[in-house]
Amino acid sequence: METAAFLKTLDYAILKPELGHESLVQAATLCRTAGVGCLCVKSVDVPLAARLLEGSATAVAAVVGFPHGNVHPTVKALEAQLAVAEGAEEIDMVVNVAALKDGDAEAVVRDIRAVVDAVRPFHVKVILETALLTETEMRLGVDCAIEAGAAFVKTSTGFAPQGGATHESAQILLDAAQGRIRVKASGGIRTREDAEAYLAQGCARLGVGSVLPLLTPAECTALGL
Amino acid sequence: METAAFLKTLDYAILKPELGHESLVQAATLCRTAGVGCLCVKSVDVPLAARLLEGSATAVAAVVGFPHGNVHPTVKALEAQLAVAEGAEEIDMVVNVAALKDGDAEAVVRDIRAVVDAVRPFHVKVILETALLTETEMRLGVDCAIEAGAAFVKTSTGFAPQGGATHESAQILLDAAQGRIRVKASGGIRTREDAEAYLAQGCARLGVGSVLPLLTPAECTALGL
Repeated sequence: METAAFLKTLDYAILKPELGHESLVQAATLCRTAGVGCLCVKSVDVPLAARLLEGSATAVAAVVGFPHGNVHPTVKALEAQLAVAEGAEEIDMVVNVAALKDGDAEAVVRDIRAVVDAVRPFHVKVILETALLTETEMRLGVDCAIEAGAAFVKTSTGFAPQGGATHESAQILLDAAQGRIRVKASGGIRTREDAEAYLAQGCARLGVGSVLPLLTPAECTALGL
Repeated sequence: METAAFLKTLDYAILKPELGHESLVQAATLCRTAGVGCLCVKSVDVPLAARLLEGSATAVAAVVGFPHGNVHPTVKALEAQLAVAEGAEEIDMVVNVAALKDGDAEAVVRDIRAVVDAVRPFHVKVILETALLTETEMRLGVDCAIEAGAAFVKTSTGFAPQGGATHESAQILLDAAQGRIRVKASGGIRTREDAEAYLAQGCARLGVGSVLPLLTPAECTALGL
């Protein structure tokens, strides 16, 4: 896949709680230089990320209810609303995983819709944390995300001890989506080969924890990295 | 240590994102029967926990900004405010760990104070996530929590891959506190011996993920468990 198009599919995530100011500056510089599609940050980091990326080709995404998703829809809505007011252009929210596992579709739709409504017309990605879900629960999550008006379903936070994306879980989301919502794979994508395999499978966006290992030395040189 | 007094020191935490309705009902029943001091729940679970524990000796605590702490103080304040409005009597908030590591004491105090002010007169415990901190950062965290009017500092969320409480980290908090703020140890406390060692050391409260393994068979029988 051509370098620039590949980089456009990436959401580069800087989400570890211990990472401070310096890590964000480094990540934003890399995004700007390489033309990474999106920098995904903690919601509290949005003002700095937006300032660092102003005038660049990189969008800022903020995570909401991250990484457990166990907060009131009203709280998620406020967090998302503040994030877009401060410069985020996309929201990656964590679904109420327990409600999904309890089969409470109404609560799940209400949860997602609160965020979608709070940031419209900005796009919302719904993190399902597939490693915690059965296939039936994943399918229900996709249906709820579609009903609530989300733009993407996303496999993983990258923080569940049970694991991140797998090609199997991505396929379940793609099959359930039937083209009605896009799919983002995230969590544990560490090689170009694996990344391109997710894209070939039909995923529209990839969440990654680092960018350089996904590029060849020649690509890095051409990009001035 | 006498059973009833020991049980009073426990914050029994039901915080895994995949745990639903049934786990909460079981935990609340155990708390009510055994006289556990506090049940610590996801903020979204407060209404159910409060209903289940009405008229019991067990208080409901809600976690806020959990487990990464990377949200705007305004968002933490709303989450805490809703939790006490719905029946929580204590708040366990996660500090902005990155700000603490960056040495930004002003941001850390502002973050904690937003929650303390939002729920006064209810008590706020400040989770520092000590496994991510140096000794200097832990000491700064204690100072900030005192300045902001918190009631407790707490070692860990129990979710950091780097680990939970250690007797060494608890001692650093106790030394820094000098009796000006109470210390709660949490994360990885799994035996009665270890639990009592934390109490003997000076910790006032213990966060635990299960209660039964901390009791003798004779105690369980006496409590009707």
